[in-house]
Formats: sequence, C-alpha cells, structure tokens
Amino acid sequence: MTPKRRKAKATAVAAANIAFIKYWGMRDEELVLPVNPSISMTLDACKSRCTAELLPGGAETEVLLRSTYGKLEPAPERFARGVEAHVERLAAWAGVSSPMRIAAHNNFPTGAGLASSAAGFTALTVAVVGALGKKAEPTELSVLARLSGSGSAARSVFGGYVEWPAGEHEDAGHGVQLAPPEYWDLCNVVAIVDPRPKSVSSREGHRLAPTSPYWERRQEELPARLDVVRRAIAVRDLELLGPVIEKDAVELHLVAMSSERPIFYWQAGTLAVLEAARRMRDEGLQVYATIDAGPNVHLICRPEDEPAVAARVRSLEHVDYVIRDRVGGPPAFDDRHLF
Amino acid sequence: MTPKRRKAKATAVAAANIAFIKYWGMRDEELVLPVNPSISMTLDACKSRCTAELLPGGAETEVLLRSTYGKLEPAPERFARGVEAHVERLAAWAGVSSPMRIAAHNNFPTGAGLASSAAGFTALTVAVVGALGKKAEPTELSVLARLSGSGSAARSVFGGYVEWPAGEHEDAGHGVQLAPPEYWDLCNVVAIVDPRPKSVSSREGHRLAPTSPYWERRQEELPARLDVVRRAIAVRDLELLGPVIEKDAVELHLVAMSSERPIFYWQAGTLAVLEAARRMRDEGLQVYATIDAGPNVHLICRPEDEPAVAARVRSLEHVDYVIRDRVGGPPAFDDRHLF
Repeated sequence: MTPKRRKAKATAVAAANIAFIKYWGMRDEELVLPVNPSISMTLDACKSRCTAELLPGGAETEVLLRSTYGKLEPAPERFARGVEAHVERLAAWAGVSSPMRIAAHNNFPTGAGLASSAAGFTALTVAVVGALGKKAEPTELSVLARLSGSGSAARSVFGGYVEWPAGEHEDAGHGVQLAPPEYWDLCNVVAIVDPRPKSVSSREGHRLAPTSPYWERRQEELPARLDVVRRAIAVRDLELLGPVIEKDAVELHLVAMSSERPIFYWQAGTLAVLEAARRMRDEGLQVYATIDAGPNVHLICRPEDEPAVAARVRSLEHVDYVIRDRVGGPPAFDDRHLF
Repeated sequence: MTPKRRKAKATAVAAANIAFIKYWGMRDEELVLPVNPSISMTLDACKSRCTAELLPGGAETEVLLRSTYGKLEPAPERFARGVEAHVERLAAWAGVSSPMRIAAHNNFPTGAGLASSAAGFTALTVAVVGALGKKAEPTELSVLARLSGSGSAARSVFGGYVEWPAGEHEDAGHGVQLAPPEYWDLCNVVAIVDPRPKSVSSREGHRLAPTSPYWERRQEELPARLDVVRRAIAVRDLELLGPVIEKDAVELHLVAMSSERPIFYWQAGTLAVLEAARRMRDEGLQVYATIDAGPNVHLICRPEDEPAVAARVRSLEHVDYVIRDRVGGPPAFDDRHLF
C-alpha cells in the first residue's frame, strides 16, 4: 500500500547496441573504465527483459533465466554470481539491503558477441532501481550499469547514437547521446554465423588487448576515426561513416589475433559476410560491416537497401540466419513481468 | 659440336620455399629489394621444371606451359611477357642476344600463394643460364633470379634454410644459406584450401603494405623475430621456432587486411587449419602454422608427428587436399626436357 510496496516489482526492457568505434581494452578494471572512447548505435530488435522483485528479509537472492521454451530456470552459477554482485551494488547505492528475485530473458543469442551483456545489465539495472522504488537520471543509470562490469551497458542506457567518452574521473564514465534514434534511420542486418557462446570472454579480450604489438598504433588512429564517426552521424552520411567503422572492426580483431595469446573470434562465415559486403558495395549498395567480439557480422545499411542486404546475406552458406534490426530507443519499464 | 652448341638446351628443376619470416613490402621495386630480411625453408616436393633452348637468330622467343595433362601450350600473355623480360635480362647479363624457346611446368598450384613464382623463376634462371652455356655461382644466380621480380626466388636458389638479408646495396640482394637441408629434417604439411590463383598479386600486396597503420610496428618487431628464427635453426628447436613463425604469418595478414585497400587472402579453410593447429598443440603435437600471401596453410612439424598432422588436416571440411612436403635441396639440372 505504501509507494515503496507498489514499486517492489519492476520489469525493464533494454536493447543491445552495436559499436561503430569499439571499446577494447580497460584503463581501470575495478571501475570498468575504458582506454578509449567508443560510439555505438542502440538497437531495436535485440532485447533483454529483466524482472526484479524485492523478497522478504531473510530470503536469499535468486537468479532465474527464462529459457527459450518459456520455463523459468535457475541461472548457471557463474552468471548468477555476476547478477547477485550487481544487485548488491545497486542496493548499496540505494542505501537498502534486501534479497531479490531476478529473472532475465534475451530474445537473441547470448554471449555470442552481440552485446547481450550490455542489454542484460542495462535491463537489470533499470529493473532493480525500479523495484527499489528509486529514481535515477539516465546519466546515473549509465554509471550504475557500467559498474556491472559490462562497460558497453553505459551506452545501452541511451537510445539512438551514443558515445561513451574515456575520461580520467569516474564521473566521465557514462554514455552521452549524440543523436536520438529518429534523427537517422539506419538498419543493421545481423548475420548470425554462430549463435553459440564464444570461447573467450570480452573481459579476457580487454585484458589481453594491450599485449598486441598493434595495440598502441590503433589507439593513435582512434581520435581521427572518432571524429569522422561523430561528423558522419551529425550529417547522416553513411558513405562517410561506413568505411571507418568497417576498418575499425577489422582492426579490433587484428589486435585480438595478435595479442599474447591470440584470440580468434572469426569463423568461416565471418569471412564470407565480410566478402559479401565488399561485393554488395561493388554492386552499388551502401552496406558496411562491423563485428563485435565474436564471429557474427553486423551489416549497417539504409532502409531502402535493407531488404536486398538481408536477402543476400541469408543466402550465404555459412550464415545460420539473420536478425533484421535497426536503430532503437532507450530502456523502458514494461508490465509483462517474467514471473 | 662446339661446347656452346651442346649447352644450347637445358632443363632445371627448382623448389618452392616457405617463409618463416615473411618478405612483405619492397624498398626498391626496380631492383626488387625488400624492406626487411626474410628467412625460409626450401621445399622438396613443390617443384617447378623449366626447359630453355636457344633458337636460331630471327626467330621469336616463345613461352610454353605444360598443362596438367601433358600438352605444351602457349602461356597466357601476361605470364609470357614476364618470362620474356627475364630471358632478355639474362641474355643481357650473358652478353648475348638470342631468341629462346621456354617451357615451364609446376607440379603444384600456381599463383595460389605457394611461392610458385619463386620456384618458377629460379628454374627459369638456372635453365636459361645453362642453355646460354654460362656458369654462375649460387650467389650470382640468386641475384639474377631475384631481378625477375619474384624476390623470394633469391631464396629458392639455395637448399635448406635460407636468409635473404635486406641491405642498402644491390650486392646485398641475394640469399644466404643458414643451414643445409640435412642439418634439420623439418616437414611441411600444406593444407590446400583453395588451389585457384589468388585475386590480389603479391606485387600489389608489397605496394600496399606500407599503407597499413600496423606496418611500422611489424617492422619494429622483426629484428627480434629474425634472431629467434636464426637461433632456432642453429639449435634445431621447433618449439622455439614455431610460435614466432605462426605469429609472423598471422601478422603479415593483419597488415594486409588493414592496408589501404584491405587485402583478404584468408578463407574459411584458412581459419579452420589455424584452429586445427592450435588444437593439435593442445594435444601435444609440435605443429605450427604459417601462411604466405594466399589462403593455403603450411604446417611445420617434425617427421615423427607428420603422419598424424597430415591425417588430421586431410579430415577438415574446408581442406581440398594436402601436399606432404619437407625441407629440400637447391635447384639442379635434369635431363627430362619438357620438349
């Protein structure tokens, strides 16, 4: 009956994002601060849903996943520990201490380099803050989501086009919206070449990144690339944006493949989709590839080219299926709870 | 009846080589001098045969290829022009002027990143010099072979383990044998993932190499790598040699994939064989991958591991077939002429 009681259960939905300039390498692992700024587009179709409910004192925090066939099941232990730690962090921020029941569901492959943790920890952050009856500005939510360990979650708190600057102070560690989704309607055809969880985590990749001999050189390249991406978004110029984001994605993987030990995320289908993108460009389509830390390839294109791009990619031998996504909005509360 | 007349036809056989530290980037395109030293192993099974015969004055130089089904056919025009230019260069060196009939045959895929031009131009050089009735030391043959345009031919003039130093003077531009073939019996299982000629020539790759942002950094890495490779050969230590050559091969491709425009030689099978090499190592086999400018992968291993490596690679989905090769000797004259 009290306001607090009415807020004791909340469900949030948040989207994954696709980075145009990648976050690869942490400056501070404790505070989850990046070495370099990153810029991404928040998506619309790849979404994570999370329901959080306060439990009576004395109960234990419980973490559930909704499986693809709709059943709620206890989350794997490692996953559950990460969620519990973040729930404790959020409770400490709110100045309360309460066990919670958490349930989560992704509508897209998890752990496969599709920013599922960015979507998931954003949804978790928003849902728990809501269940605790607290309010927070997006900037504060972005800091909180980032501290989960999934740095890219700092960007998924905003819709549209988002920069996560790299600053010296913890305050700098939140996303900043560069443009709302309606400013520029870009599509993202995601070629799923392997939906399985990747074998080397992004966290491990961040740790190994500085051991590549090409790490520093990429850092030197980034300021100019970031400028191009910011300008391309400001003037909505895909032919300006595309070559830079494709280059940066390939080079992130070059750094990964030359780190000590080398990380190979690419698979047969990754190369096939990269080649298909080059061919489609030769044929006059504006389509540019980018790849997060996994084998799957995102093809950024205009709405008028999207059906042709999706059809072409779907026909490739090593492509399992495609997800047709586009620029999307910020996380939102939702009344369809998971339990 | 004169000695010159008896020498008017000669056939030479020369082998391809596989580079442990790659030649990628030319310092002087005219003189075919490299930016960095390279080290290779001359092979035994992948061979090029060339017959050269002086023609009567007034005839035109003729370039033939023996096709896989044994027929002699006129070489494609571009190929023929390269051979003719080299024949003229050799005739000028010998101080003569004579049209010639040239026939060539490779027993392995041509233009597919398997050093077919190194083998071919070495065989051509030795055959023409022989047909001209001239003698030349290996060092001089190495300079002559290099000037064909196929720099790696400077190494195929020697058997065993060969360095091609990078010097300031033209004199420095020949191979130097580090160890003869019998010094260390290494095997090379070549995984043919695509036997077709590659779409971007090595020459174009050399030109584009310095446009990669990672080009200079690789150059900085090379002196230490070259030292390790020289030492590993001297002490016959595959576990010392292997990691460095695999790293250097991957990074040559990283430079290619980040050059302006990017060159992607890798195919599905390339990634599959690289992964198979890592797995075999986890299982205790000493096997290390290297890749020249093409999609095919060379697996360097000890003779005792070679059957297991060959069997494993042959079973991979994207591998067409394997060539079982090993360290081999220098070019030699042969009396089985192609015509």
